[in-house]
Amino acid sequence: MAGRKGKSQSNARKNLVSSEILEKASALFAERGFASTSLQDVADGLGISRTSLYHYIGGKEELLGTLVRGLTQPTAENLAAVAGDDSLGPVEKLDAALTGMVTRIATNPARFRLLLLSEGSLPEQLASEHAAARRDALNYLTGIIKAGTAAGALRVVDERVAAFALLGMCNWVAWWYDPDRNGALDVDALASEVAALGVASLRAPAGREPTDQTGVEHAVDLLGQDLAYLRRALEA
Amino acid sequence: MAGRKGKSQSNARKNLVSSEILEKASALFAERGFASTSLQDVADGLGISRTSLYHYIGGKEELLGTLVRGLTQPTAENLAAVAGDDSLGPVEKLDAALTGMVTRIATNPARFRLLLLSEGSLPEQLASEHAAARRDALNYLTGIIKAGTAAGALRVVDERVAAFALLGMCNWVAWWYDPDRNGALDVDALASEVAALGVASLRAPAGREPTDQTGVEHAVDLLGQDLAYLRRALEA
Repeated sequence: MAGRKGKSQSNARKNLVSSEILEKASALFAERGFASTSLQDVADGLGISRTSLYHYIGGKEELLGTLVRGLTQPTAENLAAVAGDDSLGPVEKLDAALTGMVTRIATNPARFRLLLLSEGSLPEQLASEHAAARRDALNYLTGIIKAGTAAGALRVVDERVAAFALLGMCNWVAWWYDPDRNGALDVDALASEVAALGVASLRAPAGREPTDQTGVEHAVDLLGQDLAYLRRALEA
Repeated sequence: MAGRKGKSQSNARKNLVSSEILEKASALFAERGFASTSLQDVADGLGISRTSLYHYIGGKEELLGTLVRGLTQPTAENLAAVAGDDSLGPVEKLDAALTGMVTRIATNPARFRLLLLSEGSLPEQLASEHAAARRDALNYLTGIIKAGTAAGALRVVDERVAAFALLGMCNWVAWWYDPDRNGALDVDALASEVAALGVASLRAPAGREPTDQTGVEHAVDLLGQDLAYLRRALEA
């Protein structure tokens, strides 16, 4: 038992360190360019030796591959899982899709910025994997919107434009969200706020909604909105 | 008369060529990097001589300045004009702000991509002008949302998150919109589709918009309506 616990602690530590390495490397690559950043720079930035760094990564190209694959593939996989989850209603699917994307982006902002900055200069194999994962993500999101429209829960829109509009809403988080800013929302609150905006952008007008919410829940939701509104009005 | 007409035709031609130069230069800068792109490359890309190019621009630094200033400052100015236009209602203001932004981005996609890619490496003076214009744009958009909420026409949200979500929706257009794609919307249709999504993301639910009530009275009124709704739902 002690041995297993020790191993799992060590794995957890290794994952944590790997995640720190990836964020630091992303920030440096984005700032100085991939070609002009050495593994020594990454090690210096982390305050560890180059030898220690090699304990976690195999080399610079491998690091870039891990950075890229670790973002777009999980996004596509998560969207596939949400799209195929029959326990969720159409609006809940859209909400879960957006919440998942914002959460992933807000926890890895430097990696997402790097991805966009370096999309034009990825090695061929990595570029084509990345393009495939992006295409999958777009298709799953478009599918979720289409299904919601067919069920009458979402408005009739140009699904492709809507999917890209929502992707933009989520992706942009990497460019402005700073959890350390005074009064900043935490990642969960941010994800839920952005997802709510995305859902509202597509939700069919009340009355055309099917059975997503029961009357009581809906009323409580409206009351909550009104209280927030009243507080704001009283403050003004 | 003939002289004036000739001059205005020549100005129109000069503006058109300048705009082509800016888009071509942006595409090359974004592809190869600002430092690695020469004015000879820009001239070659346009199929004109370097001497002809100097008829339109003063040099590479000036070109970059024109590219950056020509995007963020008009955006901020347009948002200021919309925010201050008392002939528009709160929802119309939001719609006009978004339509203007998407139109500008969709007609200059390469320039917008370049701006994001080179934000970290602009000369100091240009970087600070750019940052100021971005801050102004954010403040005007946040102000439009706040005013709409205070008037009861828009939902109560975190205005800063909402403003960035809408900016993301608009800015992302530079990364995916291709007017030459089969079946693509034209710029006006695209702008109106994206603006409609942005407005819907924030619009207060139908029937809950006020007419001429003040904030507190309106909130109390809404609370009364919702309580009645809750009582009915609990009875059912």
